[in-house]
Amino acid sequence: MHYEHTSTRRVEFSETDMAGLVHFSNFFKYMETAERDFFEAAGIDLIATKPGELVGWPRARAECKFSAPLRFGDTIKIHLAVKAVKDRAIDYQFRIFRHDDDGTLTQVGKGHMTTILAQLDDSGELRSIELPADLRIRITEAPADVLTPLK
Amino acid sequence: MHYEHTSTRRVEFSETDMAGLVHFSNFFKYMETAERDFFEAAGIDLIATKPGELVGWPRARAECKFSAPLRFGDTIKIHLAVKAVKDRAIDYQFRIFRHDDDGTLTQVGKGHMTTILAQLDDSGELRSIELPADLRIRITEAPADVLTPLK
Amino acid sequence: MHYEHTSTRRVEFSETDMAGLVHFSNFFKYMETAERDFFEAAGIDLIATKPGELVGWPRARAECKFSAPLRFGDTIKIHLAVKAVKDRAIDYQFRIFRHDDDGTLTQVGKGHMTTILAQLDDSGELRSIELPADLRIRITEAPADVLTPLK
Amino acid sequence: MHYEHTSTRRVEFSETDMAGLVHFSNFFKYMETAERDFFEAAGIDLIATKPGELVGWPRARAECKFSAPLRFGDTIKIHLAVKAVKDRAIDYQFRIFRHDDDGTLTQVGKGHMTTILAQLDDSGELRSIELPADLRIRITEAPADVLTPLK
Repeated sequence: MHYEHTSTRRVEFSETDMAGLVHFSNFFKYMETAERDFFEAAGIDLIATKPGELVGWPRARAECKFSAPLRFGDTIKIHLAVKAVKDRAIDYQFRIFRHDDDGTLTQVGKGHMTTILAQLDDSGELRSIELPADLRIRITEAPADVLTPLK
Repeated sequence: MHYEHTSTRRVEFSETDMAGLVHFSNFFKYMETAERDFFEAAGIDLIATKPGELVGWPRARAECKFSAPLRFGDTIKIHLAVKAVKDRAIDYQFRIFRHDDDGTLTQVGKGHMTTILAQLDDSGELRSIELPADLRIRITEAPADVLTPLK
Repeated sequence: MHYEHTSTRRVEFSETDMAGLVHFSNFFKYMETAERDFFEAAGIDLIATKPGELVGWPRARAECKFSAPLRFGDTIKIHLAVKAVKDRAIDYQFRIFRHDDDGTLTQVGKGHMTTILAQLDDSGELRSIELPADLRIRITEAPADVLTPLK
Repeated sequence: MHYEHTSTRRVEFSETDMAGLVHFSNFFKYMETAERDFFEAAGIDLIATKPGELVGWPRARAECKFSAPLRFGDTIKIHLAVKAVKDRAIDYQFRIFRHDDDGTLTQVGKGHMTTILAQLDDSGELRSIELPADLRIRITEAPADVLTPLK
């Protein structure tokens, strides 16, 4: 059963803004990277397409608190934990850390995302659907200690 | 005294993702566009630079609830209202609407952002500073009815 | 017959990078904005979807020469001219200008883009197709003087 | 002496567009990732800042030819080769490949970038400068066989 995942990546030059820091909108993209890796580790397709139909995860809510800046070249760790598995949605908790060369981890952001399973058919209508049994077998809620802040 | 602003823009092709909808991270960029326009209307520089120093608005928190999708070519209205003016920060409330050709406004997102006034000096240190008197003369909190959801 | 278009927009904060200038990748997005507006002015859908099929314009080649930087808040004009209408593709020429408050236009970039009309079916295959007659009636190559550099 | 580098990364969901493919502007960001890694491998700072001054690499020209689409989740290899080291600029050649799970490499794009070494001082002026001796010791032009297309 999968309930957490940590992804690692580098901050790209194009992710910075004129203040010299990572533009805050990228923190949400970092969360999405961890979600992709989490689904992959759990053996589930994040996006499923069949003729005339697409099943994906539109976001219902996304939030991030920013506690320290990120800069070009920083190595970051993005920790995802499943906070709640609902009928038609998953709640994630994210922690983003800067990982310095000496191994120090500094928390730079904390996020939440609620994402709905939805079907998008050719008519362009978006319709929430129930999480399939297969997914419920692979994904579960994280135990309390995983959700406890590392700092 | 300025406490609200509405910006209008179009959804760009590059803002969509493979689900055919606007990628959710762009909603945060839309909020930022409204903030830029709000500051401009209030006659304040959003970013002030002088030799070896930059004064800007790093984000402390950003949140968005997504209620309907946006698609390529949609015209959107982004309504900003000042929720609170604090010692060293401003709280904004945002409402994002799709504006159809027949004039219909459909709320597609609702956001909040807390942004801190900070000075970034050459040492790379980010230090929050008090909102200057000049800014307090120009920006104020929105009256309750402006903060009331349009829908 | 449509063969040129000029779009106007502002530079967004999120488009800058830590050098304090617009990140070069955004020049390509600016070109795309002008293309969208050009198609709209010509009364053509840039992207057509029907059940199980999408017709769009994948890029075969994109190029930009950068002659001056753009900064946050700049107003820009993006001039598109149709350089060649081919069997299955269109060649565009772009000029990007900074438009100062006093009316001065400074060319900041010059681009080219070759874009192919293609059909993407549910199998995921991308197949180039001939430009339809309807499009050929609405879009034509720009006369030489339109393609002459303004500076 | 360093003259080539290959970076590996995954395609992110946020890099796709409504055609289901990677938006072409991201190919330029991929090139930049390879440049960052190349500089790092060569032991050079891509961006150097000192009080009131920033030394970086504004782009003079960027080009990409797109030969095959990239999709969400694809693993890509970005090969950078130094084509020319000039007085105040470097010419790069890039090849971008999709790396399938079975090891197959498919070339999806080929790019060029000319980047100028420039100093940006507090007055906001951008001034090209000569490549320093230290950089010339570490970076050299690639031999002909490295510049030969893999396919």
